[in-house]
Amino acid sequence: MIYKKVSLASSPVLLALLWQFRDEPLAVCTCVSALAFLATWCMVPAATATFKRVGLSGTDMSKPTRPVLAESMGMVAATIYLVATFLFIPAQFRGWWMTSAPQSAHHSHMFPFGRLGEYLSALLSLQSMVFLGFADDVFDLRWRFKLILPTIASIPVLIVYYVGYGVTHVVVPVFMRSWLGTNTVELGILYYIYIGLMAVFCTNAINILAGINGVEVGQSIVIALSIIIKDIANINNANPEAEYYHLFSLYLLLPFVAVSCALYYWNVYPAHVFVGDTYCYFAGMAFAVCGILGHFSKTLLLLFIPQIFNFVYSAPQIFGLVPCPRHRLPRMARGTSARPTAYMVASRTSLENARPLGLAIIRIYERFGIANVERDAQGTMVSVNNLTLLNLVLVQCHRLTESQLNNRILLIQVLNSLLAFFIRYRLSRVFYF
Amino acid sequence: MIYKKVSLASSPVLLALLWQFRDEPLAVCTCVSALAFLATWCMVPAATATFKRVGLSGTDMSKPTRPVLAESMGMVAATIYLVATFLFIPAQFRGWWMTSAPQSAHHSHMFPFGRLGEYLSALLSLQSMVFLGFADDVFDLRWRFKLILPTIASIPVLIVYYVGYGVTHVVVPVFMRSWLGTNTVELGILYYIYIGLMAVFCTNAINILAGINGVEVGQSIVIALSIIIKDIANINNANPEAEYYHLFSLYLLLPFVAVSCALYYWNVYPAHVFVGDTYCYFAGMAFAVCGILGHFSKTLLLLFIPQIFNFVYSAPQIFGLVPCPRHRLPRMARGTSARPTAYMVASRTSLENARPLGLAIIRIYERFGIANVERDAQGTMVSVNNLTLLNLVLVQCHRLTESQLNNRILLIQVLNSLLAFFIRYRLSRVFYF
Repeated sequence: MIYKKVSLASSPVLLALLWQFRDEPLAVCTCVSALAFLATWCMVPAATATFKRVGLSGTDMSKPTRPVLAESMGMVAATIYLVATFLFIPAQFRGWWMTSAPQSAHHSHMFPFGRLGEYLSALLSLQSMVFLGFADDVFDLRWRFKLILPTIASIPVLIVYYVGYGVTHVVVPVFMRSWLGTNTVELGILYYIYIGLMAVFCTNAINILAGINGVEVGQSIVIALSIIIKDIANINNANPEAEYYHLFSLYLLLPFVAVSCALYYWNVYPAHVFVGDTYCYFAGMAFAVCGILGHFSKTLLLLFIPQIFNFVYSAPQIFGLVPCPRHRLPRMARGTSARPTAYMVASRTSLENARPLGLAIIRIYERFGIANVERDAQGTMVSVNNLTLLNLVLVQCHRLTESQLNNRILLIQVLNSLLAFFIRYRLSRVFYF
Repeated sequence: MIYKKVSLASSPVLLALLWQFRDEPLAVCTCVSALAFLATWCMVPAATATFKRVGLSGTDMSKPTRPVLAESMGMVAATIYLVATFLFIPAQFRGWWMTSAPQSAHHSHMFPFGRLGEYLSALLSLQSMVFLGFADDVFDLRWRFKLILPTIASIPVLIVYYVGYGVTHVVVPVFMRSWLGTNTVELGILYYIYIGLMAVFCTNAINILAGINGVEVGQSIVIALSIIIKDIANINNANPEAEYYHLFSLYLLLPFVAVSCALYYWNVYPAHVFVGDTYCYFAGMAFAVCGILGHFSKTLLLLFIPQIFNFVYSAPQIFGLVPCPRHRLPRMARGTSARPTAYMVASRTSLENARPLGLAIIRIYERFGIANVERDAQGTMVSVNNLTLLNLVLVQCHRLTESQLNNRILLIQVLNSLLAFFIRYRLSRVFYF
């Protein structure tokens, strides 16, 4: 097996590099991340039999053969991520280790406890969500738990944000300043509610834009890489405080990208494993924690525009204005003898029991060209594509294989990252300077 | 149902008390713990059907009817514990909240980040073990994971211990001082290995002294209450630093005792649920974390004497010197018509394939009266009781019901706590002063 050979050959090299650059936390983090990649790459196929044995498996509906795959494999990736970040804690504070003798009187006064607290709170909130996600995969939790528990899981991060930084005002755009008579607006407790909701939003956002091979992990990798590029681009022209927050975000996201890439290898079309809610919650909370403690929550929301669009677009079905079937995945269509490959088409929902408000919204969608409505002879609306981004892409492109559909979504995500950076680094000057 | 009525009636009272005493962290902790007790009391029976549905169930072998019970219910108790401790974080630092305006310049310099870090690291290590325990219940992990992962899970606590306290010397007993020529011995890295092993030991110790209704939770409650009594007895005649560590230990153990008591209600003979590895790992790590960060790891080991004895006594079977069957639980014997109650007898193992060293150890055990050996006509040893504390108690008492056996073990645990305090507070003066 190629992955075993590569891992066996490269891990000694990585360990040697780790030792060589042990005084550079960022280099250590990179080596640890590479090792986490190799571990995930090897452990995922090794764990599939165990996951299937205990019933954590599901049918891949989008293949003609309908294979049964191990489910919830994000648990392996998340566990390796947590092990990697735990092992990285000592390396991160090695600079302090080396300059301070443990028995000296001022020993503990010199230690950056605030930063250790930030890192620990990030891992605590993250791990809570991994645990919750795995419990959701095993038990299929009710919705109320899925909304309440992420809020509680974000408490450690909120507390650390409050005591360490505590900025709860937002800067008002230039054109609104004369109108509001102030340059900043103090949000106080509302700001904490906003960042608390951030955790609930991120964890569910990735879970909603899901359902075909590779798409959950793929979008997460694109978002994480975007943040990493932002951090690297800004790290050198920043003050030490800002530099620290860029590093903080890198320390959390480099191992995240590593384990995600290894998981993507096994989850991309044709998938060998499913990633489960565990991965979606894990990824969402990783972004929320980085955004909150790294102080770029607004930029993060820009990176989530496809997920936000997907949620708003889905809203008529989520809130019951349009009938919402149990599954809204795109449907597989078997190929014809001329083009034998199976492809995906948008799945549809009947509009028979739709509320008047739901029908009105569908009409607006239709006018904007973002819904495919079927009408009967009298012109009454009969059915519409299920309102998800995946189905919308299929409506626009008509006929895509599962692999092509995944790539389109990732392309949208990449283009959105470019847009987000344009808004953040070019357009925002118009509004704020 | 009595538990629902009691909970409905008393939670408003507890919430009112919580609000009344919101400036007293210890009072808040007590109220939160009481609420956690009620939540666990109600949630455990509510969750049994879900746990059984997903296959987390097991047969109670010690009952004539062999009922199938929900397994791994410690997961519910541990989750409620984590929610309670997360919610308690703000209350714990409320004193600081109230005296410091968030926007002031020295805002974050005044905050006790070291203490927040200790609490967060404790929760992080604890939650890691809950997660590991639940994974073990679901997947039945291999032994290597059960030894490596607790070590990694204890890293956050070790780091915080190192940077915050960093004492790695032990005081030498008086009679050895002239011989060693020093009052203290610096252990350095060995000390960290010792406290790292502490985590592995505690998490597995409770898991080994297990197998009859109530015994895992019961022993944990006795140990936790012993530590709580120690903390309360010492809290007022201590310096502020020591007082803080007693409080730290109380903040972690009060909710632990609360959820454990509720779980005990459902797990005691005749059990309605099993607690699973989740509970054993959770309880073990709670003690390890308290002992390490509360700086009483040696006293903690004294409280674990029955578990240590159980491990040492079992060693010939664990290390393969004496044949070790898959299960070493006491065996149920059906009652006779004269005494119809089912009772427990010691289970036995054949000595046919025992190694010579194993047989020698069994002979020593026999001389001390702690093994029941069966011999054939030639005087050759044929079988011996399985080498666990539970079977040993049965060998000594001959015939006990499951409930009586559990109570004997708890009695041993209580007597041991008295012995531990005698050693710690009376006998230690002879050696150290």
